[in-house]
Amino acid sequence: MLTVSRKVRIEWGDCDPAGIVYFPRYFEYFDQCTVGMFEAIGFVKPALLKAYDFAGFSVVGVSSSFRIPSKFGDDVIILTTIPEWGRTSFKVQHRLMKGDELAVEGFETRVWVGHDPARPGAIKARPLPQELFERFRNA
Amino acid sequence: MLTVSRKVRIEWGDCDPAGIVYFPRYFEYFDQCTVGMFEAIGFVKPALLKAYDFAGFSVVGVSSSFRIPSKFGDDVIILTTIPEWGRTSFKVQHRLMKGDELAVEGFETRVWVGHDPARPGAIKARPLPQELFERFRNA
Amino acid sequence: MLTVSRKVRIEWGDCDPAGIVYFPRYFEYFDQCTVGMFEAIGFVKPALLKAYDFAGFSVVGVSSSFRIPSKFGDDVIILTTIPEWGRTSFKVQHRLMKGDELAVEGFETRVWVGHDPARPGAIKARPLPQELFERFRNA
Amino acid sequence: MLTVSRKVRIEWGDCDPAGIVYFPRYFEYFDQCTVGMFEAIGFVKPALLKAYDFAGFSVVGVSSSFRIPSKFGDDVIILTTIPEWGRTSFKVQHRLMKGDELAVEGFETRVWVGHDPARPGAIKARPLPQELFERFRNA
Repeated sequence: MLTVSRKVRIEWGDCDPAGIVYFPRYFEYFDQCTVGMFEAIGFVKPALLKAYDFAGFSVVGVSSSFRIPSKFGDDVIILTTIPEWGRTSFKVQHRLMKGDELAVEGFETRVWVGHDPARPGAIKARPLPQELFERFRNA
Repeated sequence: MLTVSRKVRIEWGDCDPAGIVYFPRYFEYFDQCTVGMFEAIGFVKPALLKAYDFAGFSVVGVSSSFRIPSKFGDDVIILTTIPEWGRTSFKVQHRLMKGDELAVEGFETRVWVGHDPARPGAIKARPLPQELFERFRNA
Repeated sequence: MLTVSRKVRIEWGDCDPAGIVYFPRYFEYFDQCTVGMFEAIGFVKPALLKAYDFAGFSVVGVSSSFRIPSKFGDDVIILTTIPEWGRTSFKVQHRLMKGDELAVEGFETRVWVGHDPARPGAIKARPLPQELFERFRNA
Repeated sequence: MLTVSRKVRIEWGDCDPAGIVYFPRYFEYFDQCTVGMFEAIGFVKPALLKAYDFAGFSVVGVSSSFRIPSKFGDDVIILTTIPEWGRTSFKVQHRLMKGDELAVEGFETRVWVGHDPARPGAIKARPLPQELFERFRNA
């Protein structure tokens, strides 16, 4: 199972008057990590958007638990992996670590979507490309 | 059960290159709705932070499902209610409606926290104040 | 000279660890006010984007001075007006008022842009539509 | 003159429905660059906030011109320098480069502020510490 690691610096503007990360910002970090994980196997999202009949990997659901707060200036590590693959969707797990401790855990359910040939301007779920699995397997 | 309704205009800066709300922004809307619900029963958060030995109602977990996207210029309604009360925590439900349709549903688990007398600078969960229930009951 | 007024509630997530508005957020407020001003004269941006050969009123420059900070829970008023019109551009002034005091002043220089017929996918500055002036004059 | 360079990846969530960076996000990038420049000379802001009678380097004014847009997935370089020093304030210049081209230029005027001994809870401008100049000179 490929796990990608990213160092994140907690920035001033990501923190709230309590001095800790304003929780919606974690989902921005996680979204960036998902993009980064695909990039790590050679799927650069801007290129994908052009090359494939691909409209993105839309987020249809998330959940997250916030265990230990982080504050301005902290350097944390986010570990990202894909614990579940479906036919058109997949689940992404993000673990934000402060040293050895799990500070925040988050999950995204994402759907692979393309343009709907039957309805101009609309999108629909599409089967995950075989090439994707092969790249993850060989990573 | 008190339900508070808030109209939200989807702003340009809340939308992404796909032209729809960037999903972390929904949690900002929801956070504002929770603050607004407490304000509706006379608990203004900035005043609370001063008056009580209160440090906030920290979010310890969230989950959300995104069913129908919204785009720049849409006016949506968010219905906020508290379906569960614990001793020190409570759950908040937010339903973002586009007309009659449920577009996004989100839940926050929040803990009532105060300053920890044993550890300066630290916070700890505290029992929800009785006055809070009374105000919700009489709302 | 048309001046449009908007009430803005300072939200928790817009404030930083110093407890005051994180300054980039002011530009989000101002951007919303510019959209609101056009809407006030019947130019709804999402409709404009479709109806005209219009790609937006791009911001090419801003300046701002921050005189008095605002904090979570403050209600402020933003007064928006257009002090200067050019052929393809215009200047927008925003004054964020706390009571009678000018707390923040900001300026945006915006260009009216449309799609460039000579280069697919590209945009270019275009003359401001005559209808726009008429609506402002009659507002 | 010390110039600090930072690579910035343009993220999906920083872009708007026109597919380009939503302009208030540039000020977040610039703010992070200023923090990074001080860190480069050994002034780590969180440590400063504790060690000195220091409350921050408040932004009292900004200006920016947006020449070339950037889009999701672009890697840009931001060059940060301090072209002007005052007694209690300084000016920061940020140049966001796309290859050899200046895409965005921004200026911040910042004031060195400490706690006001005469008024608890209030802050006031303070002379820039001599150590600061020495570190910049020797960088």
